[in-house]
Amino acid sequence: MLEQFVYFSDLLGCIVFAISGVLVAGRLKMDPFGVVVLASVTAIGGGTIRDMVIGATPVFWIHDTTYLYVIFATAVISMISARKAHHLPSFLLPLLDAFGLALFTVIGAEKALSYELPAVVAVVMGVTTGVAGGMIRDLLAGQIPLVLQKEIYATASILGGLLYTGSIALGVNASWALGIAMIGTLSLRLAALKWHLSLPVFNLRR
Amino acid sequence: MLEQFVYFSDLLGCIVFAISGVLVAGRLKMDPFGVVVLASVTAIGGGTIRDMVIGATPVFWIHDTTYLYVIFATAVISMISARKAHHLPSFLLPLLDAFGLALFTVIGAEKALSYELPAVVAVVMGVTTGVAGGMIRDLLAGQIPLVLQKEIYATASILGGLLYTGSIALGVNASWALGIAMIGTLSLRLAALKWHLSLPVFNLRR
Amino acid sequence: MLEQFVYFSDLLGCIVFAISGVLVAGRLKMDPFGVVVLASVTAIGGGTIRDMVIGATPVFWIHDTTYLYVIFATAVISMISARKAHHLPSFLLPLLDAFGLALFTVIGAEKALSYELPAVVAVVMGVTTGVAGGMIRDLLAGQIPLVLQKEIYATASILGGLLYTGSIALGVNASWALGIAMIGTLSLRLAALKWHLSLPVFNLRR
Repeated sequence: MLEQFVYFSDLLGCIVFAISGVLVAGRLKMDPFGVVVLASVTAIGGGTIRDMVIGATPVFWIHDTTYLYVIFATAVISMISARKAHHLPSFLLPLLDAFGLALFTVIGAEKALSYELPAVVAVVMGVTTGVAGGMIRDLLAGQIPLVLQKEIYATASILGGLLYTGSIALGVNASWALGIAMIGTLSLRLAALKWHLSLPVFNLRR
Repeated sequence: MLEQFVYFSDLLGCIVFAISGVLVAGRLKMDPFGVVVLASVTAIGGGTIRDMVIGATPVFWIHDTTYLYVIFATAVISMISARKAHHLPSFLLPLLDAFGLALFTVIGAEKALSYELPAVVAVVMGVTTGVAGGMIRDLLAGQIPLVLQKEIYATASILGGLLYTGSIALGVNASWALGIAMIGTLSLRLAALKWHLSLPVFNLRR
Repeated sequence: MLEQFVYFSDLLGCIVFAISGVLVAGRLKMDPFGVVVLASVTAIGGGTIRDMVIGATPVFWIHDTTYLYVIFATAVISMISARKAHHLPSFLLPLLDAFGLALFTVIGAEKALSYELPAVVAVVMGVTTGVAGGMIRDLLAGQIPLVLQKEIYATASILGGLLYTGSIALGVNASWALGIAMIGTLSLRLAALKWHLSLPVFNLRR
């Protein structure tokens, strides 16, 4: 039950992250191949770096090709229907994106713990899984990754990683730890979106 | 025989891709180290990512250092002779580049199949081997990767990957599959160059 | 003794490289997460790529989390005290950075040799360990990596790699080889800084 919930949520997270890649590609007038590349790196880039760093190779989407098919289908459907997207309520994508961030963070931290890596590494891997894909998307789009400059986005992922690994360390069972971490990430991220919260920037510019 | 043809073609592909890195470095007035770095990432960047993702480490150019020596020699000779390059017929480099793309695609797909990975992964690895090196070159040069925006380049690589894995799946032997895939990639790429074909772009710009 | 010297020098190198990441982040007005990311990729990015390429996974900072804690502490302390940095003598950071470059180069080459890889690969891994982190920092900051364009920086690292692997090949013991390589890198780098030496650029710009 929990495993199935996590698996389908993971695919849902890939869909949402892929859509954000499609939207960036569309703003840069990329061709269909560029759209698929940006959708893919956004959706599976973070998890791919995580798996390469911890040596969990072949990486996850090679074992289970469902991820690739879901991303390709998302890219195609998004390209066809993107111009009609204004019919969707505007809060839907940010909400799903926050959900994807929360889940990817937990999945990344959980994978590190399952390899018996230290808690601090688990938090780093949670954040990597959550935000690195979006950073590669921005690099390929010629932009400084947004997540480095503003919005409480990575910070929400760090909180989720700390809550998950902390809960597991305290003996909380995995389902509860997942729930606690996701609620923490989601609350902070959605609060930041609603009230336009940012951390103060570190400014050395003259 | 086939193995030797593939090996020497692979080195030839590295030479051509390295030259394209040298040319980009020269336009940015890089120093000799920068030239060697751009030559190297263009020539072996795609195969390196492929090997890290599928866990074929140490990556290929660590086992066989011929690749490194060929790239260094190409970079040095290109720097010395680049200003005389206008003596070469102008179709030579694009033709060799298309040949390199076709062969790298087949080599990448073949390596994935030799690891018993699914066909869709083999196509992805073919395209990665064929185009990722050029994408890293463009990133290091401060440009949005050209291949994401126009020209039927990656598309020709996808076609080659599909033809190769499809042929193998249908029981065609490896030499024929290689020939079919290379002819497909080369034909599409050269047709795109000759008639300036592009896929329609996906444009969300306001 | 030698091992302890290398270990503490390695951490010192991480601190200096992390500070250079913090300074770049500060010039771009990044938020605290961005500062930590730039500090981290600069300090451990090169060694991470080295380990992934040679298959030494999980990568080094997963085995020994001291690196992560040292980088996080450096980032926090630097953010707090950066505005007072003008009290430091201006030669201190470039001097420590040259020291970090020299040591990272030797550590990278030594790791490759300990995996019984060929000498040319050891030189490449030395340079990768020394300069790739700074290159990723520059990419994330939206800049063409400085090291590709000017300053005898990578060249000093190449010299160190050649001296180290050459000395080892000639039967010099590891301590002496380390000393010879570090003195070579440091001398060339500091001479380049003092007399503003650069290699001639390769210019194809029209």
